[in-house]
Amino acid sequence: MVYLVGAGPGDPGLITVRGLSLLRRADVVVYDQLANPELLKEAKASAELLYVGKKAGSHAVPQGGINELLVQKARAGLTVVRLKGGDPFVFGRGGEEAEELAAAGIPFEVVPGVTSAVAAPAYAGIPVTHRRYTTLATFITGHEDPAKEASTIPWAALGQNPGTLVFLMGVKNLAENCRRLVAAGRAPETPAAVIQSGTTLTQRTVVGTLATIAARAREVDISPPAVLVVGGVVELAGSLTWWENRPLWGKTVLVTRSRDQASRLVELLNAAGARCLEAPTIEIMPPADYAPLDAALQHLTRYDWVIFTSANGVRAFMDRLFHMGLDVRVLGRARLAVIGPATAQALRDFYLVAEVVPDTFQAEGLLEVLEPKLLGGTR
Amino acid sequence: MVYLVGAGPGDPGLITVRGLSLLRRADVVVYDQLANPELLKEAKASAELLYVGKKAGSHAVPQGGINELLVQKARAGLTVVRLKGGDPFVFGRGGEEAEELAAAGIPFEVVPGVTSAVAAPAYAGIPVTHRRYTTLATFITGHEDPAKEASTIPWAALGQNPGTLVFLMGVKNLAENCRRLVAAGRAPETPAAVIQSGTTLTQRTVVGTLATIAARAREVDISPPAVLVVGGVVELAGSLTWWENRPLWGKTVLVTRSRDQASRLVELLNAAGARCLEAPTIEIMPPADYAPLDAALQHLTRYDWVIFTSANGVRAFMDRLFHMGLDVRVLGRARLAVIGPATAQALRDFYLVAEVVPDTFQAEGLLEVLEPKLLGGTR
Repeated sequence: MVYLVGAGPGDPGLITVRGLSLLRRADVVVYDQLANPELLKEAKASAELLYVGKKAGSHAVPQGGINELLVQKARAGLTVVRLKGGDPFVFGRGGEEAEELAAAGIPFEVVPGVTSAVAAPAYAGIPVTHRRYTTLATFITGHEDPAKEASTIPWAALGQNPGTLVFLMGVKNLAENCRRLVAAGRAPETPAAVIQSGTTLTQRTVVGTLATIAARAREVDISPPAVLVVGGVVELAGSLTWWENRPLWGKTVLVTRSRDQASRLVELLNAAGARCLEAPTIEIMPPADYAPLDAALQHLTRYDWVIFTSANGVRAFMDRLFHMGLDVRVLGRARLAVIGPATAQALRDFYLVAEVVPDTFQAEGLLEVLEPKLLGGTR
Repeated sequence: MVYLVGAGPGDPGLITVRGLSLLRRADVVVYDQLANPELLKEAKASAELLYVGKKAGSHAVPQGGINELLVQKARAGLTVVRLKGGDPFVFGRGGEEAEELAAAGIPFEVVPGVTSAVAAPAYAGIPVTHRRYTTLATFITGHEDPAKEASTIPWAALGQNPGTLVFLMGVKNLAENCRRLVAAGRAPETPAAVIQSGTTLTQRTVVGTLATIAARAREVDISPPAVLVVGGVVELAGSLTWWENRPLWGKTVLVTRSRDQASRLVELLNAAGARCLEAPTIEIMPPADYAPLDAALQHLTRYDWVIFTSANGVRAFMDRLFHMGLDVRVLGRARLAVIGPATAQALRDFYLVAEVVPDTFQAEGLLEVLEPKLLGGTR
């Protein structure tokens, strides 16, 4: 089975629930450059990740090769996810891949995605439709080779079209496309915006008109990937900006927590607009030698107290216990102490309630509380 | 904070990961008719669910009232999700709501969704763009009042536009819209399709041409919600059909498992195309009287064996234990028996390993295995 899955426009939260669930189940993931590379971390460890994206105008793997690869992997009985940026059927060549699969008798499903034609403008505060402005929106592939003799883009029709136009992959031919629209009848003062890396933490938006936008984009070095939006709705960008207005927008934060613990913090920082660089200064790792722990676990029923000094410690303890063929019943006669409420919560996750939780959340505080409870001979 | 969230086109798997996560966190969900009602089950139990959708051409709540409601709930410090079918900025009036919020100084975010303009055709085997056919796709709102004197739809431009056209909400004016397109220059033999309830288990697709599609749709009683797709890409519908081709498509299955246990089965049946009606013939519920269980739990340390006869029983036991202020250490000296491997796995989830797992998975099998182990006085 092959799933043609839209990865969405860049923000990893914009993949669909079904797309993510298939990505996690896939034996093979065939992906291209537009998919957010963060998403690949969701694939299972044993999944084969195959990059077939475009590089500098040419395909890393030609389309025929991609089609063949999908057929071959599916015939081997593998669950294949073909992960594409945006939506597989909006300029994604998903139609061609589906045709190939259908011809080869390979069952396939399509999992649509959020297209950057809608989402990049939305993250720049531009609704592609709005009652006050327009009843239609047109999406055009903007990367046509300008050397091509007869353009396949119907410029005359677009010149007459008063609605919103969104050109995907629109940087290279930006000036030429704007010139053609004006030549075909769109007013030079029609509002226009270019959005680079839309929906990501490096998004940049430039606003102008059909007459000025190409020069403005050049001034600030707008580079691919970017979309061009043309139409009255662009006027709203000023008042509806939200993504690039968040409190930590433009800030880069160095996160020094251990990798396991950083994700919640990174999520909150990202939500406030910050970019995060992870540079763990501590690492939680298994002990080099399990022998002392194993010995203690083997004789746990002899202990009066078990003291946990971190939530990580609780989880490592339980996993090792289980690994040794023991289970939580060995704690039957022990009393439990923890260093603080986070560790107590970690115990509660295993349906265990600590008898001692000190007020000051450090090892010293714990000893103070525990001292009067420890009689001679207690271990 | 107000989140303008696209619910996607109908298939509940097509909401975005971020959209679902916000829906689960929301204090207030303001929704309309197009959102899949199944999704509302994801809101937390305490969330306020407010329906403001359209009914028979008129708004249940006028747009001004919706805007006011969003502002008022957000000012009360609540997390508000404005859930809209498809994408909030593709004919969703999300632009107007965002303007209102911005004017009132309420922070908001936009969570784009998969639009049915792309997804409904995709689920009918129609890619809205395809190199062999077209470099552009235009989305048009199809529910304009035909009594309106001057149409805001630029028919002349659409007549010249050789690309794919997708009319959303296109049933009521279907015949008129097709007639106008032909009058404006699109060939009457241009392929056209109508997709009713796209991406749902009641999806229906009718294929024809601009000249025939209105009559064909009438013949089979196509009703809203539906989209009209016009253009060469519709030719692919025949060979790329997949959603309506799945093995159990059109079948309705009565699922009699308890509601808690049905979801995995329903998911698998849905994936194969079946519609499911849930009619639980058993219900797992808490005991009417906890006294006997509580008494046993209080004295659990006196028992030699604890026998679990179902996975549900394991979880109920643990929850009650915890509720009583006890924890798993009361099992310290007991041995554990289960009725079969699923129950054993439920125990493993609590880091407990059953000593006895019979080969035949019934209460009688368990007694056979257990009998020789039980001595006089064992309880």
